[in-house]
Amino acid sequence: MAFCKLPTGVQDILPAECRILNAVKEKLSAAFEENGYEPVLSAAVDYYDTYAKTENALPEERMFKFTDGDGKILVLRPDATLSISRIAATKLGRERARLCYFVNKWDAQNAGGLKSREIIQAGVERLGESGALSDAQTIAFAVDCARRAGLKDPIAEIGHVGYLKGILEACGLSSEEAETVRAYIDAKDGLNAERLLSQAGAGRETLDAVLALPTLFGGTEVFDRAAALTQNKTALAAVAHLREVGRILTDMGYANNICFDLGTVKRLSYYSGVVFSGFVKELGVPVLSGGRYDTLADAFGKHIPAVGFAMGLKRVLVALERQGGLPAAPQTDVAVACERGAEREADAFRLQCVKEGKRTVFLASYGKEALQKEDACEKYFVTKEGVQKI
Amino acid sequence: MAFCKLPTGVQDILPAECRILNAVKEKLSAAFEENGYEPVLSAAVDYYDTYAKTENALPEERMFKFTDGDGKILVLRPDATLSISRIAATKLGRERARLCYFVNKWDAQNAGGLKSREIIQAGVERLGESGALSDAQTIAFAVDCARRAGLKDPIAEIGHVGYLKGILEACGLSSEEAETVRAYIDAKDGLNAERLLSQAGAGRETLDAVLALPTLFGGTEVFDRAAALTQNKTALAAVAHLREVGRILTDMGYANNICFDLGTVKRLSYYSGVVFSGFVKELGVPVLSGGRYDTLADAFGKHIPAVGFAMGLKRVLVALERQGGLPAAPQTDVAVACERGAEREADAFRLQCVKEGKRTVFLASYGKEALQKEDACEKYFVTKEGVQKI
Repeated sequence: MAFCKLPTGVQDILPAECRILNAVKEKLSAAFEENGYEPVLSAAVDYYDTYAKTENALPEERMFKFTDGDGKILVLRPDATLSISRIAATKLGRERARLCYFVNKWDAQNAGGLKSREIIQAGVERLGESGALSDAQTIAFAVDCARRAGLKDPIAEIGHVGYLKGILEACGLSSEEAETVRAYIDAKDGLNAERLLSQAGAGRETLDAVLALPTLFGGTEVFDRAAALTQNKTALAAVAHLREVGRILTDMGYANNICFDLGTVKRLSYYSGVVFSGFVKELGVPVLSGGRYDTLADAFGKHIPAVGFAMGLKRVLVALERQGGLPAAPQTDVAVACERGAEREADAFRLQCVKEGKRTVFLASYGKEALQKEDACEKYFVTKEGVQKI
Repeated sequence: MAFCKLPTGVQDILPAECRILNAVKEKLSAAFEENGYEPVLSAAVDYYDTYAKTENALPEERMFKFTDGDGKILVLRPDATLSISRIAATKLGRERARLCYFVNKWDAQNAGGLKSREIIQAGVERLGESGALSDAQTIAFAVDCARRAGLKDPIAEIGHVGYLKGILEACGLSSEEAETVRAYIDAKDGLNAERLLSQAGAGRETLDAVLALPTLFGGTEVFDRAAALTQNKTALAAVAHLREVGRILTDMGYANNICFDLGTVKRLSYYSGVVFSGFVKELGVPVLSGGRYDTLADAFGKHIPAVGFAMGLKRVLVALERQGGLPAAPQTDVAVACERGAEREADAFRLQCVKEGKRTVFLASYGKEALQKEDACEKYFVTKEGVQKI
C-alpha cells in the first residue's frame, strides 16, 4: 500500500479552507490590479547558486536541495523576493516596475503549523523606487491588503535596519561580530551581547543603547528616545527616515495601524532600510513582512533600489478564523438528474441554471433516485417530456 | 555574481503573459465553481513512496527527488490526480466528490518549450462516479473549459484502454509483454510489435487488429470497424462503452468537438477505461488530457471509481497566441503624483480613481516631473490646494 501520510510540515488544503484561500487570493489580486501592480511568476525550481552566491545568502540548511541530471544543484524557490529581483535585473528591461505574485516558497527547516515548510505567499515588489514616500506607500498598501483579505485591525510594526547597524558600527564591530551580537539580542541574551560588545571596545553609550533596544517600541514618541541614545550618523539617519515615514502614514490616515520598533533585530539579511511586519492581535506571528532591499539586485549585475512585502496566506486563514471572519461555504444550489435519452434536455437545463448564477450539479447517474443523495437546495428531474421539480 | 540563468526546462512567466495566465485561471475557476466543483490544494512536496509504491507508478527517473532531514525520500508532486486520489481516500470522508485544482506538477525528464519540466495545471476529478454518462459529462466539461479558456474549436480525441488491453490479453500476453508491445506501437515500430506478438502465439486476427489500430480514428463510424476486428469481450465492451459515450455527447451537442481513437496507445498507467486528449489544430500536443481511473485509490485503501482531466495552462497560452486570441495588456489608467505634505489628498484621490474602476498608480516621487516618465492615460498632480490635471 502506498504512503498515506505527508512529510512533516507540509499540508493538503481541503475544500472548505481552499475556497476561502481562493477568495482571499482573488481579493488581493483585485487590489494589486487596481493599484497598477503587474503579475509575474518565477520558476519554482532554480539553481542553488542563485540563492547561495550572494552576500545575502539564505542559510543552506533552510533549502530543499536536489541534483539535476547534469550534476548541478537545484533548489525549491526558498525566497520569492530574490527570484523577482533576478527577473527584474535580467529580463524586464525597465527602470521601474511594480510587480505582484502568488507563489509558494519552501523552508526545509520549518516544523509545520504556523511555520509551514511550504509557504503560500502573495506579495508585491516596487522596483526602482527610493525614499520615505515609497516606503510609506508600501506599508500603507500592506495594511490595505491585510484589510482587503478580511483581517480586522492589522498593525504594521515598522523598524529600520540602519539603527542597530549604526550603533554596532560605531564601536567598530565586523559584520560577523555584529551578526553574533544581533543573534544574542534576538535570543534575549543581554549578558552575552554585552560581553561581546565590551570585548570589542564598545563604550557605555553603545551598551546602554543596545540594552535599551527592547524598549524602543511604540508610537512616534519613540523617535526622540531613540535619537537621544546615539550620536552615530547611520543610526540617527534611520530615526529621521522613520520619522518621515511616520509623518506620511499618519497624514494618509494610518496612525491607528502602525507602530514603531527601533529594536527590531530581524536577521540582517538583504534588507537595507525600512523593515516591517504586519500583525493582528489574535496571532502571535506576522501575517506579512517586508522592507527595503536596495542592493539585492546588485548580485545580478544591476542596481535597483526596491521595497516590497509578502503575506503568508495560510497564516491569514488562521487569523481570519480566530477573528471569526470565515465565510460559510457556499451550498450547491441546483442538482439535475435525467432519464437515459434526455441528456440534451438535462444539459440545456443545467446551462440555464448556471446562467442564472446558480451553482449547478448535473448528476452522473440516471433516474430520480440519484437526487435523493444530494443536499442541494433545488432538485430537478429531466425527461424527454420536460423538467420536473422534485 | 549570482547565477542569472534558469535550469533547463523551467521558465519565468513575465507580466504580459502572466496576466493572461491569471485571466485564464479566473475563467476556469468560475466554470468549476458554477458546476459544483470544490477546490482542493495538495502538498507540492510529498513522499516518494506515495508515488512509487503503487502498481501504476510513474517512472522514477521522471521525478525530482530529494532527501528529508530524517533520510526519507521526498518528491516534487509528479502527478496531480494521484495526490487528489490520496486526499479523497484518506481525508475527505465522502462517498462522492467533485474536486478541482490549480497546481504545478513536475517532470524531471521534460526538456522545455511545450514540454516544460514545471507544468502549470488546472484540473477536475469526479470521484465516486461510474458509467458512460459520467464519462460523457466529463469530456463535455473538458470541451467547455477549453472554450472558456478562450480556445476556438477544441477537439476531444476519445479512446478506451480496454480495446488494446482486450486484444493483447486475448493472446495471453503478460502485462510486461503487453507494455512492451504498446511501446513498440507507440513508436510506430509495427515490425517489432508483430514479432513479439507472434512469439507470444498471437493469431492472425490479433496481428491484423494491432496493425489496424492506427486506422481506427475518426467519427462514430469507427465503432463498427473496431468491433469487426476482434471477438475479445473486453475489447468489445470498450467499443460498446465508447458508442454510448458518443451517443450522449452527440445528443448534448458536442458532435463537432469529438472524435474517436481506438488505436490510442497511451502508457497503460493508471487509466482503467475511457481516455481522452483535447487538441486545437494550431498545436501539435494536447492542451488537456484525462480519463477514468477506477482503481487508483485502491493503493490508499479505498475503492473509488473516478474520472477527471487536467489542462496544461502554458500550452493553453501558446494555443491562444497561435489562434490570435491574446487580449491586449491593460494600460495604467491614472498616474497620481503629489507635493510633499499633500500625501493625504493624493491618496484620497487615488482611492477615488480606484473606486471608479481605474487602474491607478500613486507615484513614489514628489513633484510634477515624476509624471513625465509615466505613460498612463490620465495624469494628475495633487497639492494642498487641490487636484490638477496635467
